[in-house]
Amino acid sequence: MERIFIKDLHDHIGKEVTIAGWVDVRRDHGKLTFLDIRDGSGIVQSVALPSHPETQKAASALRAEWVIEMKGMANKRPEKMVNPNIPTGDIEIEALEISVIAKADEIPFDKDASDLGIEAYLDHMPFTLRRAKSRAFARVQAVIVSTFRQFLMERGFTEIQAPKITGSDAEGGAGVFEVNYFDRPAYLATSPQLYKQIMVGALERVFAIGNIYRAELHSTTRHLNEYTSLDLEFGFIKDHEDIMRLEEEFLRVLVLQLKEKCAHDFLTWGAEIPEVPEKIPRFTLREAQQKIAEIGGAECIGEPDLEPAHERMLCAYTKKHMGSDFVFVTHYPVSKRPFYTYEDEEHPGFTKSFDMLFRGLEVTTGGQRIHDYDKLVANIKKWGLDPKKFSFYLEAFKYGMPPEGGLAIGLERLTARLLGAENVRETTLFPRDMNRIDLPLATQKQETKK
Amino acid sequence: MERIFIKDLHDHIGKEVTIAGWVDVRRDHGKLTFLDIRDGSGIVQSVALPSHPETQKAASALRAEWVIEMKGMANKRPEKMVNPNIPTGDIEIEALEISVIAKADEIPFDKDASDLGIEAYLDHMPFTLRRAKSRAFARVQAVIVSTFRQFLMERGFTEIQAPKITGSDAEGGAGVFEVNYFDRPAYLATSPQLYKQIMVGALERVFAIGNIYRAELHSTTRHLNEYTSLDLEFGFIKDHEDIMRLEEEFLRVLVLQLKEKCAHDFLTWGAEIPEVPEKIPRFTLREAQQKIAEIGGAECIGEPDLEPAHERMLCAYTKKHMGSDFVFVTHYPVSKRPFYTYEDEEHPGFTKSFDMLFRGLEVTTGGQRIHDYDKLVANIKKWGLDPKKFSFYLEAFKYGMPPEGGLAIGLERLTARLLGAENVRETTLFPRDMNRIDLPLATQKQETKK
Repeated sequence: MERIFIKDLHDHIGKEVTIAGWVDVRRDHGKLTFLDIRDGSGIVQSVALPSHPETQKAASALRAEWVIEMKGMANKRPEKMVNPNIPTGDIEIEALEISVIAKADEIPFDKDASDLGIEAYLDHMPFTLRRAKSRAFARVQAVIVSTFRQFLMERGFTEIQAPKITGSDAEGGAGVFEVNYFDRPAYLATSPQLYKQIMVGALERVFAIGNIYRAELHSTTRHLNEYTSLDLEFGFIKDHEDIMRLEEEFLRVLVLQLKEKCAHDFLTWGAEIPEVPEKIPRFTLREAQQKIAEIGGAECIGEPDLEPAHERMLCAYTKKHMGSDFVFVTHYPVSKRPFYTYEDEEHPGFTKSFDMLFRGLEVTTGGQRIHDYDKLVANIKKWGLDPKKFSFYLEAFKYGMPPEGGLAIGLERLTARLLGAENVRETTLFPRDMNRIDLPLATQKQETKK
Repeated sequence: MERIFIKDLHDHIGKEVTIAGWVDVRRDHGKLTFLDIRDGSGIVQSVALPSHPETQKAASALRAEWVIEMKGMANKRPEKMVNPNIPTGDIEIEALEISVIAKADEIPFDKDASDLGIEAYLDHMPFTLRRAKSRAFARVQAVIVSTFRQFLMERGFTEIQAPKITGSDAEGGAGVFEVNYFDRPAYLATSPQLYKQIMVGALERVFAIGNIYRAELHSTTRHLNEYTSLDLEFGFIKDHEDIMRLEEEFLRVLVLQLKEKCAHDFLTWGAEIPEVPEKIPRFTLREAQQKIAEIGGAECIGEPDLEPAHERMLCAYTKKHMGSDFVFVTHYPVSKRPFYTYEDEEHPGFTKSFDMLFRGLEVTTGGQRIHDYDKLVANIKKWGLDPKKFSFYLEAFKYGMPPEGGLAIGLERLTARLLGAENVRETTLFPRDMNRIDLPLATQKQETKK
C-alpha cells in the first residue's frame, strides 16, 4: 500500500492507510500505547490496542525519533478528544502493523521542553530543529519567501541571483568579512544593493533572495553575522512612497497567506498573525522622535537614528493608539544613510529613505536612490570614497537610469517578530555569530546581552 | 494617463497609451524616426511622423539608452511588417508626446552586436546586460528557479535557507575559500549538502537555492568559482532511482513552462527548447564507457569518471540514437564520490549515485546517502576524515534518519546548455572566476582555455 502524508489523512478517514515518519513521543497508558508519528507534513496520534498484541509489542519497543512505517486504520476521534492545536488533531490511527526503518540513540533531552535553553537548543540543532516550534518557524519562513516571490513575479519583477563575493569593501560602513580569493583579498557582500541597482537598467524590476554578511562584533538577540535578505529594486518610481506602498501591499498578501497556510504554526508559538492597516502609520524621523519624547524618551530628540529602545516605544505607541503593529519611519538624515540615498529636495539634509518597524524591531530598510550619474559621483566623493572603485557600478547610471528605489527585508527578523521569538536565533536555520558556527567557536565565549 | 508595460500593449490596440523605458535603438529613415523602446517587460517599435513635427524633433534628439516616457497610439502593424522575433512585433506606437526622464552618455559600442567578445561583454555588464540575449537568459533563469520551487512545493518540499559560512573545510575535496571570521578561519560552503541532509530529519523534504563556492584554479568555459545550486533532499526513498524520476518529472514541467513563458527568449538565442523523453536514457558508468569506446573513445574504459570530451560523445550518441538531449550516468565508483554516498550492495565498489548530462555537459549530481549512523562514522574514518569534525552533522543520523537522498543542479550551466551559450559566463549574472570579480583582477591575466 502506498504511503500517504500525514497532512492528507483527512481524505482517508475510515480507511486503512500506511504512513511513515518519526516517533515523536511514545506514551503508555495501562494497556494502551500511544505514539505521536511525525512526518514532513504533520503529526498524528496513533494507538496500539491490546486486541493486536503483536503490534502493541512492537509499539512498546519503539523509542523517540525511531523511524517507522505504520499500517493502520484512520479513525475520527470523538469530538471531546480532538486536539485543536494540530491540523490532524481530530484523527487517530489505530495501529495494525509497525515496521522499524531506522533506530535512534536515546535522545539527550525532551526537545519540546518549554524551558530548553538557547545554548542547548543551538548546540543540538540537528535534533532540536525537529521540535514543533522549529518546524513551525521553518514553514512560516518558507511561506514568507514564497509569498515575496509570487507577489513580485505577479507585478513584473524578475528574480536575480546576486553575487556574494565582491572585489572591494568600497562602501565602507558596516564591517565586512574578508575572503582569501586566490591570494588576493575579496569580501563578502553586505547586501546585493549595487547589483540590484545595476539590474534595474536591464530588467527594470528585480528581486533577490540570499544570504548577506555583516562582520559586526555584536552579540545581541537581534543580530546575525549571516542572514537572509529579501531584496527588491525597481525603476520609474515617483519617490520612496511608491516603495512603501508596495511593501504595504506585500504585507497584506503575506498576512492572508499566513492565515491560510500557517494558522497552526502560529498556535504552536502562541503568536498572533498581525493585521495590516489600510495605511501603515508614517512618521518622519523628527516626528517619531517628538512622539517618543512625549511618551518618555526625550533623549532621542535630534539624534540621527532611533535606538532599539526608542523603536520599541514608537511601536508600542502605534499599536496602542493607531492599532498597527507596523510603522514606517522616513527621512533619516543624509549623514546616516549610504552615499546612494536620495536627498529630499523639500527637506534638505534628510533623505527619501525609510525603515519599517514591526513589533518593536526594524525589519525593513528602503528608499529612493540617486539615479543621476553626476550627482552619484559627486556624492561618492562627498562620502570620502573613491569613484574609481565604483566604476563598474557607475556604468549603470552613465548609460541611462530612471528614478528608482527599493527595499530589503531581514527574513529571520521578520520571522522572529511574527512568531514572538525573543531571539532571532530561534527563527534562523544554523545561525552564525561571533561565538558560533554550528557549534560554539573553540575559545572564550562572550556573554550574550539583550 | 497611467503608464502601461510594453508586454500589455496587446490589450490597448487602437488606443492612446503611455509607455516608459529606454531607447534601445533609434533609426532615421528619411522623414521618419523609428525608436525601439525597451522596458522591463519587453520591447516595441515606435515611429515619430512628420505630421507631429514637435514630437519628431524630440525623437530625433534621442540617443540610445536615454530614459523616456512616450504617449502614443498603439497601432497594429500590417501583416507583412510584423517582427515575429519579439512578442510585440505586431505593434507599432505612433509617437504623440515624448519626454526625457534621464539622458545617457554615448554608448561605448553596439551592445547587441553578434561579434561582441566575451571580455568586453563582461567588462561592461551594467551596460551589456541590457542586450536582448542577456535579458533573455535572465528571464529563462528566473523561470527555471521559479519552476523548481513551485514543482517542489507542490510535492511537499519546504524551502530552507542554508548557511554559506562553515566552520571547517571538513569534507576536503574541492578547494574551499577561507574567510577571516573574527580572526579565526572559516570557509565558504562548497554545497549545502550537510545542512539539507540535517533538515531531512526535521522536515523530510527540503530544497535550497543559493550560491556555493569552489576555490578551484580552473579557467574554462564551464567553471565558475561562485555559482547557484538548486538543491533538494528527501527521505523515505527506495534508492537513487526515486531521485532520478523526480528530476525527470521536474524537467518535463520545466520544458512546459519554458515553452509557455520563454519561447521568444529561445528565439533570441536561436536555441531550441528540448523535449524530455518518457524515460531519460540511463547508463551505469561502465555501460557508458563501453558505449563511448564503441564510438571512438576507448581511452575512457576503466576510468573512475568521464572526461568532458567523453560526456559530449555520450550525449551525441543518446541524441542521435535515442532522441534524448538528457542522459543519466549512474554507479560512479565509491572512490570518486564523497564519504556520504551510498554503496550499492549489489554492485560493490559502485555507488547509488548519478550525474545527469545535458547537451554534453554535467548539470546535475545526485544520489542516495548513507543514513545509518555507524556506517557513516565508519566511512568518514575510511575517507581519512575526522568524525569529531562532523559531530554536529552526525547528530542528525544519531537520532533517526530514513533512507534519503537528493540532487544538486547547477543553475548557470543548465541555463547555458538550454540556450546554447558557449561559455557559462554568458548565462551568469556577474560571474566570478580566478581572473575576475566584476572587472578583471588587477594583476596578470591567464589565458582562458576551453
